[in-house]
Amino acid sequence: MQLPAPPPRSFASDNAAGAHPAVLDAVVRANDGHALAYGDDPWTRRCESAFRDLLGDVTTLLTFNGTGANVLALASLLGPADAVVCSDWAHIATDETGAPERILGVKLIDVPTTDGKLVPDQLDDLAHLLGQVHHAQPGVVSITQSTELGTVYTIDEVAALCDRAHRFGLTVHLDGARIANAAAALGGDIAALRAFTVDAGVDVLTFGGTKNGILGGEAVVYLRPELARRALYLRKQVTQLPSKLRFLAAQFLALLEGDRWLQLAQHANEMAMRLYRATDGLPGVAHPAPPVVNSLFPVLHPELLAPLRDWSFFWDWDVARHQVRWMTAWDTTDDDIAALADGVRSAAEQLEITSVAT
Amino acid sequence: MQLPAPPPRSFASDNAAGAHPAVLDAVVRANDGHALAYGDDPWTRRCESAFRDLLGDVTTLLTFNGTGANVLALASLLGPADAVVCSDWAHIATDETGAPERILGVKLIDVPTTDGKLVPDQLDDLAHLLGQVHHAQPGVVSITQSTELGTVYTIDEVAALCDRAHRFGLTVHLDGARIANAAAALGGDIAALRAFTVDAGVDVLTFGGTKNGILGGEAVVYLRPELARRALYLRKQVTQLPSKLRFLAAQFLALLEGDRWLQLAQHANEMAMRLYRATDGLPGVAHPAPPVVNSLFPVLHPELLAPLRDWSFFWDWDVARHQVRWMTAWDTTDDDIAALADGVRSAAEQLEITSVAT
Amino acid sequence: MQLPAPPPRSFASDNAAGAHPAVLDAVVRANDGHALAYGDDPWTRRCESAFRDLLGDVTTLLTFNGTGANVLALASLLGPADAVVCSDWAHIATDETGAPERILGVKLIDVPTTDGKLVPDQLDDLAHLLGQVHHAQPGVVSITQSTELGTVYTIDEVAALCDRAHRFGLTVHLDGARIANAAAALGGDIAALRAFTVDAGVDVLTFGGTKNGILGGEAVVYLRPELARRALYLRKQVTQLPSKLRFLAAQFLALLEGDRWLQLAQHANEMAMRLYRATDGLPGVAHPAPPVVNSLFPVLHPELLAPLRDWSFFWDWDVARHQVRWMTAWDTTDDDIAALADGVRSAAEQLEITSVAT
Amino acid sequence: MQLPAPPPRSFASDNAAGAHPAVLDAVVRANDGHALAYGDDPWTRRCESAFRDLLGDVTTLLTFNGTGANVLALASLLGPADAVVCSDWAHIATDETGAPERILGVKLIDVPTTDGKLVPDQLDDLAHLLGQVHHAQPGVVSITQSTELGTVYTIDEVAALCDRAHRFGLTVHLDGARIANAAAALGGDIAALRAFTVDAGVDVLTFGGTKNGILGGEAVVYLRPELARRALYLRKQVTQLPSKLRFLAAQFLALLEGDRWLQLAQHANEMAMRLYRATDGLPGVAHPAPPVVNSLFPVLHPELLAPLRDWSFFWDWDVARHQVRWMTAWDTTDDDIAALADGVRSAAEQLEITSVAT
Repeated sequence: MQLPAPPPRSFASDNAAGAHPAVLDAVVRANDGHALAYGDDPWTRRCESAFRDLLGDVTTLLTFNGTGANVLALASLLGPADAVVCSDWAHIATDETGAPERILGVKLIDVPTTDGKLVPDQLDDLAHLLGQVHHAQPGVVSITQSTELGTVYTIDEVAALCDRAHRFGLTVHLDGARIANAAAALGGDIAALRAFTVDAGVDVLTFGGTKNGILGGEAVVYLRPELARRALYLRKQVTQLPSKLRFLAAQFLALLEGDRWLQLAQHANEMAMRLYRATDGLPGVAHPAPPVVNSLFPVLHPELLAPLRDWSFFWDWDVARHQVRWMTAWDTTDDDIAALADGVRSAAEQLEITSVAT
Repeated sequence: MQLPAPPPRSFASDNAAGAHPAVLDAVVRANDGHALAYGDDPWTRRCESAFRDLLGDVTTLLTFNGTGANVLALASLLGPADAVVCSDWAHIATDETGAPERILGVKLIDVPTTDGKLVPDQLDDLAHLLGQVHHAQPGVVSITQSTELGTVYTIDEVAALCDRAHRFGLTVHLDGARIANAAAALGGDIAALRAFTVDAGVDVLTFGGTKNGILGGEAVVYLRPELARRALYLRKQVTQLPSKLRFLAAQFLALLEGDRWLQLAQHANEMAMRLYRATDGLPGVAHPAPPVVNSLFPVLHPELLAPLRDWSFFWDWDVARHQVRWMTAWDTTDDDIAALADGVRSAAEQLEITSVAT
Repeated sequence: MQLPAPPPRSFASDNAAGAHPAVLDAVVRANDGHALAYGDDPWTRRCESAFRDLLGDVTTLLTFNGTGANVLALASLLGPADAVVCSDWAHIATDETGAPERILGVKLIDVPTTDGKLVPDQLDDLAHLLGQVHHAQPGVVSITQSTELGTVYTIDEVAALCDRAHRFGLTVHLDGARIANAAAALGGDIAALRAFTVDAGVDVLTFGGTKNGILGGEAVVYLRPELARRALYLRKQVTQLPSKLRFLAAQFLALLEGDRWLQLAQHANEMAMRLYRATDGLPGVAHPAPPVVNSLFPVLHPELLAPLRDWSFFWDWDVARHQVRWMTAWDTTDDDIAALADGVRSAAEQLEITSVAT
Repeated sequence: MQLPAPPPRSFASDNAAGAHPAVLDAVVRANDGHALAYGDDPWTRRCESAFRDLLGDVTTLLTFNGTGANVLALASLLGPADAVVCSDWAHIATDETGAPERILGVKLIDVPTTDGKLVPDQLDDLAHLLGQVHHAQPGVVSITQSTELGTVYTIDEVAALCDRAHRFGLTVHLDGARIANAAAALGGDIAALRAFTVDAGVDVLTFGGTKNGILGGEAVVYLRPELARRALYLRKQVTQLPSKLRFLAAQFLALLEGDRWLQLAQHANEMAMRLYRATDGLPGVAHPAPPVVNSLFPVLHPELLAPLRDWSFFWDWDVARHQVRWMTAWDTTDDDIAALADGVRSAAEQLEITSVAT
């Protein structure tokens, strides 16, 4: 099949994108002579300060990646014999190769959800485990914002979950690998970020950098600093202490500077909406719903799957339903979107597909 | 006390140095559009190939830092109820905040050494544990090359240890955070590197990048590829799978290109020797021995300690003996050395110190 | 409310029963002077031999309790980054306070079932995880026989599961806390036991003693002895090596002697059937199904719950449906059954309940 | 070689002895109908009360064996990133097959001692690790009383260690597998036991039953009950919750009744002293020191080793010095001692040994 040129930037994932030029530039500028390792440097101190400007009286530790950030955050919260309650779609439960179980020795209690979002009543159902000696004791609730399914908890939903969790004596961890996309979707300013985190009662969050335009790195932000009491030791123990920490701090400084984190995420979200508009109704393409953040989960006509994927890679989502995932990034352009739409149209035409998928 | 300008690059540590310009340049060039994450990219494939050029039919996985690399390597080697035998100075035993114990659930049997180097007879002494149900079973011998004390195993010493270990059914892990400095000291070419690793019988090694001029990263190299059977899963499980792996691969490509890794280490070693020559015999400074690699452990006159450290930071080594550590890096210059020597002279003069430390 | 005398032996659980007189007698006889500890004694050797008589060329290790036995068995089977597949009702997943996660660092993939029984197609669904680096790799299938819901896998069902598991490269663990009750239900002789274990392809099983008339203890039986290669070390490492092992071996010898294990389980099963017949149709009592082994899950009229439980304790099963669990044991008598039935009748009469529960 | 009849009860170990008749009798009496499992029974409640009579306002949990008891006790004390400080002879470090490392993920910092006893200054040496991010943080000091070398901490020594530990913010665990022998050696009454435990500042201890005349079992006693907050869950999680707990409680009740635990230990200690007197000065036997508790470590003439061991088994202690261990038990008799002495004399005579070993 002959298809037009594929989009220069694929829709495979936001972590297929590279780094924003300002981030790279910050790394280059930080490469200025010697600086003590392990965080005893001015970049790290400025970065800690920048997170306090963003979120208030918080303690921030930088880590290498999302799995490491989640493991560190949970390690800081978990007490003896505690379990973690999460959605059955949670990244910690499904996509971290059992890292939490191995490193933390912890049971994850994964609760069925259709949209990746826990609701307070599910905590009520689990509360009967509290005090029963034969059961790991729910100690932490972990939510993902935005979720693995591209949905977003409203501010009130997070607040209600935190309230219920705290009433049962549980703490709340927010996996924010795409927290910027959620903030962009929920108001698009810092007030929005604060509303669904510190104001809502979240105890510890991870603040994603990798999927939002840096080379790689995540921040663990303790919204209640007393929870960070052992965090420095734990970060090293779970292998997440970078040696030349200044280079990671410099990246986050560039990301936080001038609210760049928010602008990049807003752009990615907006591009997902444009991609939705550009492809919804195309022959062989059915979008179950418009995007909330930067991911789309279209159902494709089965004959479209192989040729389109060969042409510009994307991941399967639900093979049985021939549903796939298209994801935009901080650097997605209108040209990329037009190129994808053109490719779809061209492939459908050649395959004589005229209707939507199912 | 009035002292001359301190050295622009301190002697605190080789991980206080930044990245070599060619490394940074490689990162910038790798930031070229989209590439699939988690290693499915051309940089990673080229990097794997470069390690095969260097060491033969090996499997290589990149990781974030030294603790992560060691944990991954050991995770690949350890069987049920196995223990790790190491020197009492081993980084895994003393400087990783118990990461091996926590993540691997493994006992480290740390054997007393004076120079950080295990000898084969120490394995004989431990062999009586084999087959005894009340003891964790020695399964892996871990050595560090060059060692935490700045010493280097000769090629024959590594070979003899590997031979003895294999005879008892143990495998051998080499912590190569400063493997380049060892290669530089043992011949200064690739043949030397091969001689004390693959030829000597080492099973798995880590190949350090962080302390040798990159932004941060270590390679785990399986010299017997069958040991890597589960390594991809384990890397993710121990939180050491980078998302945008191309940026780490690009750094290692720049490091391996044109034997840069070797030149940088040779430079650091040579600078340590020059620092030794420039300061040995200065009032208040006594070097127990000339350097083998890039670290010196001078004993300082006690009154020199505080003013010199305030002036240009370095770490204590043995407080009781007022012994400190001076470490050179890939970027140490003759001017740095001259500046340190000037500072020592000036401080000694002002303090009217005329003899060596003890 | 005035009720007749409660049953001397309650229907709370089979582990509320004591030990069979022959078991106690064996302990008393084993208390004969000195014997080396940790299994180097004649009782332990005879016990190992007795299990070989029962199940063929097997290796058997005794342990203290069911959680310990399961942890040891799984520790012997699990490879690096492996996960355990089990039913969502599995004891290892729901009733062991996270011991497998903590001690083995393993992820349990618990699959929804309505009757506590896995089916081969569920393994097909999980096979897509194999080879994917972001997922813990299914390595062991764990089934319970008889299940936590009082159901029993047929011989063919176990064989089909083992076959499918092995085809995917997984091993099979059978949690046999009530294996004797299953053997009694599936034929009532040793051939039946062999048919659904060694003949069906199970790799490792636990053989329960505690719930079948001994003071306390479980056997881990390796049906493929090569899987026991590290088992002696692992038993000690997971805290399950008894010091004076002879006393545990003596109990199992008494249990295996003359097929007592089978007779006791047959009795318990038969008593459950008699209890079913004696109470089915009583006012306020509805049995969803007749018992297969030694447990009944009647739905009670809500007003009956509190007075009956106060009178003779039993456990809730599904509070929302006011379903409870009645369990018979090796020592349940017809008088106990008659007493329970009388109590139900008397309570129902006083509460003027005339129909069944729902 | 022809030797007289060996001693009916060997000197191999105190865990080679059986159970005291009163203990067995208690088990038989506890086998009286049904009782709820997992500790909800009158025997367990009486046992908890008996420990309060012994040691004050304590919380007591029974476990199966020494490794399990130590693991549970440490699990209750350890915080995130904590390490355990112990002697290099500590059972937890040398004889538990790495159970603490595996189950607790904890680093043991084993400090060299000549007599198995830690001294407060060793804690000072370790205090420099506190606050250093690269080191597991000393959190618990673990001592053994009486020690693995048959020595005993004086009351003042324990108090001084506890005081120093607490000053650094560490808690103190006492491994009391042979705590009764220590109490017997330090005064022989309950006041002595209290003096070196609760009065001295110990936080948690294990109280050994197995080596002092029961079938098998150890108690974990929390001298500060707030440390037991999660202990019930942890006991289950580390596989140490017995199902039919009444049978273990009954054994401890018999052991505590009328101070039987103290009498049995006093007897064992006294027998060791008599064995010392009966064999010291015999040809080929040299005792480095008289016994403090129930173990002797004689150096034997090398030619005596094999024939004597074949005749009546005992364990090597230091093969290089041909030093062995002879251990008395609660049931050792004067006839046993006389028989051993006769055997030694006869063997020495036949081998024409006239002097002591070295």
